[in-house]
Amino acid sequence: MRKTFKLDNLRRYTPAQLIVFYYFVAITISFILLSLPGVHKEGVKVEAIDTLFTAVSAVSVTGLTTISLADTYTEYGIWMIIIILQLGGIGIMSIGTFFWLLVRKKIGLRERQLIMVDHNQYNMSGAVSLIKEVIKIILLIELIGGLIFTLYMLKDYESFYDAFLQGLFMSVSATTNAGLDITGNSLLMYHNDYFVQFITIILIILGAIGFPVLIEVKSFLSNRVPNFRFSLFTKITTVTFGILLAVGTFFILLLESFHSFKGMTWHERFFTALFHSVSSRSAGLTTFDVTQFSEATEVFVSFLMFIGASPSSVGGGIRTTTFAIAILFLINFARGKDVIQVFNREVKLIDVYRSYAVIILAVFMVIIATILLLISEPAIPVTAIVFEITSAFGTCGMSLGITGDLSNFGKFVIMILMFVGRVGLISFLYTLGGRNNKTNISYPKERVIIG
Amino acid sequence: MRKTFKLDNLRRYTPAQLIVFYYFVAITISFILLSLPGVHKEGVKVEAIDTLFTAVSAVSVTGLTTISLADTYTEYGIWMIIIILQLGGIGIMSIGTFFWLLVRKKIGLRERQLIMVDHNQYNMSGAVSLIKEVIKIILLIELIGGLIFTLYMLKDYESFYDAFLQGLFMSVSATTNAGLDITGNSLLMYHNDYFVQFITIILIILGAIGFPVLIEVKSFLSNRVPNFRFSLFTKITTVTFGILLAVGTFFILLLESFHSFKGMTWHERFFTALFHSVSSRSAGLTTFDVTQFSEATEVFVSFLMFIGASPSSVGGGIRTTTFAIAILFLINFARGKDVIQVFNREVKLIDVYRSYAVIILAVFMVIIATILLLISEPAIPVTAIVFEITSAFGTCGMSLGITGDLSNFGKFVIMILMFVGRVGLISFLYTLGGRNNKTNISYPKERVIIG
Ligand SMILES: [K+]
Ligand SMILES: [K+]
Repeated sequence: MRKTFKLDNLRRYTPAQLIVFYYFVAITISFILLSLPGVHKEGVKVEAIDTLFTAVSAVSVTGLTTISLADTYTEYGIWMIIIILQLGGIGIMSIGTFFWLLVRKKIGLRERQLIMVDHNQYNMSGAVSLIKEVIKIILLIELIGGLIFTLYMLKDYESFYDAFLQGLFMSVSATTNAGLDITGNSLLMYHNDYFVQFITIILIILGAIGFPVLIEVKSFLSNRVPNFRFSLFTKITTVTFGILLAVGTFFILLLESFHSFKGMTWHERFFTALFHSVSSRSAGLTTFDVTQFSEATEVFVSFLMFIGASPSSVGGGIRTTTFAIAILFLINFARGKDVIQVFNREVKLIDVYRSYAVIILAVFMVIIATILLLISEPAIPVTAIVFEITSAFGTCGMSLGITGDLSNFGKFVIMILMFVGRVGLISFLYTLGGRNNKTNISYPKERVIIG
Repeated sequence: MRKTFKLDNLRRYTPAQLIVFYYFVAITISFILLSLPGVHKEGVKVEAIDTLFTAVSAVSVTGLTTISLADTYTEYGIWMIIIILQLGGIGIMSIGTFFWLLVRKKIGLRERQLIMVDHNQYNMSGAVSLIKEVIKIILLIELIGGLIFTLYMLKDYESFYDAFLQGLFMSVSATTNAGLDITGNSLLMYHNDYFVQFITIILIILGAIGFPVLIEVKSFLSNRVPNFRFSLFTKITTVTFGILLAVGTFFILLLESFHSFKGMTWHERFFTALFHSVSSRSAGLTTFDVTQFSEATEVFVSFLMFIGASPSSVGGGIRTTTFAIAILFLINFARGKDVIQVFNREVKLIDVYRSYAVIILAVFMVIIATILLLISEPAIPVTAIVFEITSAFGTCGMSLGITGDLSNFGKFVIMILMFVGRVGLISFLYTLGGRNNKTNISYPKERVIIG
């Protein structure tokens, strides 16, 4: 009786609203997990707001922290964080569906819709199998990455278990793009260990490129689908991702070669630039003290973080496709074309609209957040504030080291940005209002002078 | 024979390209005017780049200067600047048409189209009479404003001519929204002269509200047009302008009341906030040392300047209607509506597209310019750079006092921004590529995951 009542209640909300609600629940659960006795090291006292901040940061796989995980959490606490990262990284919807699958309940239309919005899948059928694939693939990647790291670092640790905990955390943190560390100093100790960097880069890209891409590549490789064709989405997001990596690496190299990279060899310069270009998509791990970057590089990296990773990935930001559609739209508009044609396909009007709405709202949020933090944090320089804001919105987690210095108000602003960045602005927009409010009244059209 | 050849040549270009070309010519002429013997005070040496900067700033009615006009130019030089401000403020197209009218040549279709793009008038008929109206109205406003200032300040000057030169310059500078001053310190000496501020505010608004609005108000007041109806454009731009003024005043008051306005009376606070809110639309005149503003206010004012004034006005920026359409679009999108309905009219799709293109390009330009100036001006703080950039793009001309400190590279970047801001991004976009490249190939539509 009570169960039916609850389901009926759920049906009254849009999928987007439910996703926001579920993320709230996930944060609450994470907050409780991180407040359990035994998670904190002896003598360490953590304020409630910092525990909440860690919970939001972990669920949104951002990785900004106001405290040092290494100094704060016990081994037991670290395992809690690994669990929370799975909640955030794979997505509450996947977990929820997985749970349903385990108890062999049939998935209803409503739940399928829910999954579709979270992973933005337009094709209804196969949503369930998609979720199974997602979980299998991600867990497999995390485990393989973890074992590679473990074996590689075994000589440096006292026991296999110690090496495995470190290796698994590094792998989970890279694959979920959480960017958290239990070393206390990100990956700076590996600044010239190109093996660790290379594996980390692979794991980051696998997490940030988007689940649909992984699924499609798997289908392609399995060779079992006749006349297989990569979707327009996969083509656009992969190409954009690649271009952003290349452009990011090039400009970081260009801007820093005569600045903070001066004393480095060419290969260290290249790897440092490449790593931070990759990391700015969403991971937030660093192999270099980013406070050494010039202000120009800081603004440039802020812009990269603002763009973020692929949709339906562990990353945030406005997403690669939003950025790509905006650029394609601009080029076509300047050429006087009225439709966007790319990869022998035409982009639908509604997706151009979506990209517009996302960008406008995102720009607004960044400007308002910047003004708010300039008021609440008078001692922090503007570039550091903008860097922190775009890092939170892009769920990236790179920081110029100011997270711990923020006022409680500032922490709340950053938490909201991490939350919105993870949920995604499209879901967020649909949460604000209803959907499909078709207008019945019709007015004459009239032109307005623009720009 | 040569004339026909030249006209044929002109016909090969789009109106937008010709406007860009004409602005180039105007800047060249202004550069020559400001290099004539006798314009500089004795013993004053001005670098060519600074003369060019002044020419671009005056033609684009921005008002940023790398030199002090008061210390540099003779009375003769000041008159040259007044002439240049007319070229920029009223628009080269108006002047060109006026010239044609004077010599009683018939205006051809091509020239009418040219006027239409410059003033963004979609209705072909009446372009000629519009231009006549524009020139008459603006010159009249300038003269009346000049006389009011002259009479008010007569007691402070030795002769009527001295008072008139000062009064006329103030009036022209306010009406054309140039924001230049020959006092050496903007309007700071009038910081508690509310009469001068009030008249200046009226003149600024008359210049920045857009010529179509003035024309329509005149038609409305003359009561000679049966069933007169204000256009959707006039309604949107006027309401947006009003809201921006109110919001700007409110937030400047809020942000500075506990900061730089501390020692002021309530009426001085109010007028200072109001004046700078009005001035940020496009004028750039100041009654207060804006370097005293908090960083939050500086970022907020930068945002206001980025929006700029009405289209078809003396102002720049992305323009009020672009901003309004973006906001209306966002609200409607969140509500799930597929069309923008406002004031009992429906906004056409092409104008939503235009606003998108303008905003994307404008945001890009500001980010790229910021990174460039951060590289070329390592000694200047970021907020001052962003303030200067948005001020140039909005052809506003407020500055945190760094214009004179810019490197030659920095000066070029700011000149390009002033130029693009004045020409307008729509004209600029159409200049980059052709128009109406209708695509003949048709591809299947496919959706892409956004945001
Ligand atoms: K992250
Ligand atoms: K101005």
